[in-house]
Amino acid sequence: MTEFTSETVASVVTTAGATRVRIPIHLRWGDLDALGHVNNTSMLKLLEEARLRAFWKPEIGLPGPSTAILDALSLSAETMTLIARQEIEYLAPVPYGQRPLDVQLWIGRIGGSSIDVCYEVYSPRGDDVQTCYARSTAVVVMVSTETGRPVRLTDDMRRAWTPIVGEPIAYAHRR
Amino acid sequence: MTEFTSETVASVVTTAGATRVRIPIHLRWGDLDALGHVNNTSMLKLLEEARLRAFWKPEIGLPGPSTAILDALSLSAETMTLIARQEIEYLAPVPYGQRPLDVQLWIGRIGGSSIDVCYEVYSPRGDDVQTCYARSTAVVVMVSTETGRPVRLTDDMRRAWTPIVGEPIAYAHRR
Amino acid sequence: MTEFTSETVASVVTTAGATRVRIPIHLRWGDLDALGHVNNTSMLKLLEEARLRAFWKPEIGLPGPSTAILDALSLSAETMTLIARQEIEYLAPVPYGQRPLDVQLWIGRIGGSSIDVCYEVYSPRGDDVQTCYARSTAVVVMVSTETGRPVRLTDDMRRAWTPIVGEPIAYAHRR
Amino acid sequence: MTEFTSETVASVVTTAGATRVRIPIHLRWGDLDALGHVNNTSMLKLLEEARLRAFWKPEIGLPGPSTAILDALSLSAETMTLIARQEIEYLAPVPYGQRPLDVQLWIGRIGGSSIDVCYEVYSPRGDDVQTCYARSTAVVVMVSTETGRPVRLTDDMRRAWTPIVGEPIAYAHRR
Repeated sequence: MTEFTSETVASVVTTAGATRVRIPIHLRWGDLDALGHVNNTSMLKLLEEARLRAFWKPEIGLPGPSTAILDALSLSAETMTLIARQEIEYLAPVPYGQRPLDVQLWIGRIGGSSIDVCYEVYSPRGDDVQTCYARSTAVVVMVSTETGRPVRLTDDMRRAWTPIVGEPIAYAHRR
Repeated sequence: MTEFTSETVASVVTTAGATRVRIPIHLRWGDLDALGHVNNTSMLKLLEEARLRAFWKPEIGLPGPSTAILDALSLSAETMTLIARQEIEYLAPVPYGQRPLDVQLWIGRIGGSSIDVCYEVYSPRGDDVQTCYARSTAVVVMVSTETGRPVRLTDDMRRAWTPIVGEPIAYAHRR
Repeated sequence: MTEFTSETVASVVTTAGATRVRIPIHLRWGDLDALGHVNNTSMLKLLEEARLRAFWKPEIGLPGPSTAILDALSLSAETMTLIARQEIEYLAPVPYGQRPLDVQLWIGRIGGSSIDVCYEVYSPRGDDVQTCYARSTAVVVMVSTETGRPVRLTDDMRRAWTPIVGEPIAYAHRR
Repeated sequence: MTEFTSETVASVVTTAGATRVRIPIHLRWGDLDALGHVNNTSMLKLLEEARLRAFWKPEIGLPGPSTAILDALSLSAETMTLIARQEIEYLAPVPYGQRPLDVQLWIGRIGGSSIDVCYEVYSPRGDDVQTCYARSTAVVVMVSTETGRPVRLTDDMRRAWTPIVGEPIAYAHRR
């Protein structure tokens, strides 16, 4: 029998007043580069997968977090999401491990046709002390599949996503 | 509390006389190519990760299958594994999904310094009927990290791996 | 002014009676894995790119080899190509380098709706002695974009591809 | 005979007072995602390759730009480079094409042990009008391979890199 627990699927968790989607994301040994650490571009692949599991409807019958309302997995969907900008700070090298990383995700800002998705990537849940490996912000724009132009967020989106709005990440080392 | 079940980690399973390591491997949306299916080279990335989880010792404290005895994750290890050849048949296009694929793996032949690893990639466990997406065989050679030359399999390796020796895959469409 | 030479684009070359398409393919440092060599799955990415440059029409105004007649870059094309099986032998580890590898490609067999594409991957042209890093065969099937079912090769395809038909690769180490 | 031209290797070019390293970087069809455009994380792979070709010594006998002085391709090198942060703005979707993109790269700031590498990614040289697809800044830190701690840039580095110091990118859409 298949069981889904908060260890294996995305879940919405509130801790100390902040509500985040927590998504377990497995590394692959192939994410390492010749320096023996998870490559900086592989990290963005992990964030991509986390974003998708947080916001896109999973396949039928699979539980998803309450934020997962987009039909964007389908090319026949009316709207799709584009990344307009991304910022990332790497705080510590990430080693390969078989347990999933704990990617935590929230929304720093809801705009007219875009959201700022904030991420913190932690070492696996269950570690005595979790290391924060990276912090990132992605500006995700909702665009029409047909015209490629931005479209307004719907009321359903605002309703589903407002609970995970929190403080945006303040980057200390910006130039 | 972190729980590990046969749904989330590799396990050795005997069904109808055949003993296989079954490894749940998560897809990433990024494994898809512009045709909208898991790319044929991404499939080999999945097999690579399955092989590693089947044969390499996991990090300390994590349960692994009885076949996972290699220290190969460490560059300071005396031996490492190389792929000498690989053969793969793609039986059906693989769609993206959030549940892990069920990669089944066994050994078709134990040689002097190499093993033939056989794979079948199935749709997720829990499906009423599981689709077999691909079958593959990889010849994995144990080589000295220092000299790059093949080294003999140890008795420990033979002992750990003999239980999963089975029929090699017979490829029908070979040229 | 942009110049295209046989060093920078695919070309059809006949040597000692065998006619092959030779395609310069650049490595990326990111193709290396934690062992410091081009990963075995990255090698298939290189073959994929070579196949595409050999058989798909390049963008307008760019010279292509006489074999590059497929419109398959377009999703609106009537036919697309699928890989049904692939076989590869790795002969030597591939180091990173900035000059393109010399991927040589020919057809081992033309079938009703498929071709067997044969590859040899060599160290860069201009080397005093070129090393053969890998040999591979891919069975490429022409399928209808609409139905996903195999369609017959057209006369145009047969005409364009017959000149590069040669001996299929005989794999010595098959199990 | 192998010829290297500014179309095929990195070159240092001064235009209108700004000096940049221009590096031709080939796309691969595999860089596309299921939406049919170069994936946003693939773009960072292209920047990684451009950075390496701009700053790391090429293999013996191959011409490199005057900025390519690092031995970092070797794991036995005393220093290696890490990415501490990266920022990227995506200005237009990138289609697949067989001619190399024109990645232009300069240094926005030389610090004690780090440099800010600025990039603009353009459509291929030779286009009547080149499209700017993306702009990015990466903070690259020189660290000791042994201790992992930052080390001071050497005089050689400062000498080689000062000619390509220019205005840092001003990001208009920062949050």
